Amino acid sequence: MNPNPSVSGPLQSLPGREVKGLCEALFVETEPYPETRAVFEIALDLQGIAGTRHYGFTRKAGPREPWYKRGMDMRSGRQITAVSREELSAIAAAMQVERVAPEWIGANIVVSGIPHFTLLPPGTRIVFAEAAIVVEAPNAPCRIAGKAIARHLTHGAGSGGLDLAFPAKAKGLRGVVATVERPGTIRAGEAVTVKVPPQTLWQPV
Amino acid sequence: MNPNPSVSGPLQSLPGREVKGLCEALFVETEPYPETRAVFEIALDLQGIAGTRHYGFTRKAGPREPWYKRGMDMRSGRQITAVSREELSAIAAAMQVERVAPEWIGANIVVSGIPHFTLLPPGTRIVFAEAAIVVEAPNAPCRIAGKAIARHLTHGAGSGGLDLAFPAKAKGLRGVVATVERPGTIRAGEAVTVKVPPQTLWQPV
Repeated sequence: MNPNPSVSGPLQSLPGREVKGLCEALFVETEPYPETRAVFEIALDLQGIAGTRHYGFTRKAGPREPWYKRGMDMRSGRQITAVSREELSAIAAAMQVERVAPEWIGANIVVSGIPHFTLLPPGTRIVFAEAAIVVEAPNAPCRIAGKAIARHLTHGAGSGGLDLAFPAKAKGLRGVVATVERPGTIRAGEAVTVKVPPQTLWQPV
Repeated sequence: MNPNPSVSGPLQSLPGREVKGLCEALFVETEPYPETRAVFEIALDLQGIAGTRHYGFTRKAGPREPWYKRGMDMRSGRQITAVSREELSAIAAAMQVERVAPEWIGANIVVSGIPHFTLLPPGTRIVFAEAAIVVEAPNAPCRIAGKAIARHLTHGAGSGGLDLAFPAKAKGLRGVVATVERPGTIRAGEAVTVKVPPQTLWQPV
């Protein structure tokens, strides 16, 4: 056995690093699900955004976790949804539509200036002036969000296939889900620092 | 901008994968900190191990987070400490001592058969028959654990430098901290499945 594979072993690693970006806009939930509406600031506590459906340390298992019994209490990991302005533009280009608005697909936070935002590894911290959140996982593009996009772009005249195009074209670009690590108020227009931890491509070799 | 960097971009990726291992032994906290004592089973709820100091969705910021005010309420991420039998042997070899026991350094779970256990990326699930935990981060080898090792190996006759040797030699081998995702009872001797998510070595290119 290799006693220190992170240094001398066959696995590829990168040291941690920081990049700066901008918190462009903020949104909280509204009707119909999953839509959100723009706000100037959001008070984050350690359970997320008080009064919203994703608030809480725990949630019920659902169709995203078919390996768990539906309705089981589980760790949340989905308090906050964050997307990137540049990736939303890339999704719109791939879908051949004018735009995909963050408030159509349930985003709480829109950032800019962070390359490959959806690929930030779990454990990455997004640090605001007061608060900090931890990236849990890439968000999975779903047909519910696709339907919301279709509703806005076709003005109710059928989906035009956009509901299905979204999950296909948004893969790897849909942003991330995150959990609050440090509570505080976050504000549209403030700078963010993204702290990516050291990474190793794990393989059983 | 590359619209789909996970497929065609310059970043290196690996698909998710599963490996099987064994839960060799289980431990719960005892005195003095950070020592633990062997048990046959542990009931995990969504806050960790009830009645122990690491129980809870949140904890106070401490010396591990010098960027936060000491005592601030923050997300825990440290409910459970897991180590690997093979890596403890590697640490003992590097320290030139007979053994490093998991109960000396605060471990709750000892696994075997999982290569590069400490390098499992955050977001990896360790799945037991009933419960599941999520890897949060590699654990940092600290001098408190080093002192506990020295106390056992030298039988109180000074530290022999072992307190300082531990943080140096255990780097990358100290195991991981984890959070409960699915509650349930875990048992010494049961099989575990380690589910590593798809990974990308993130770089701002």
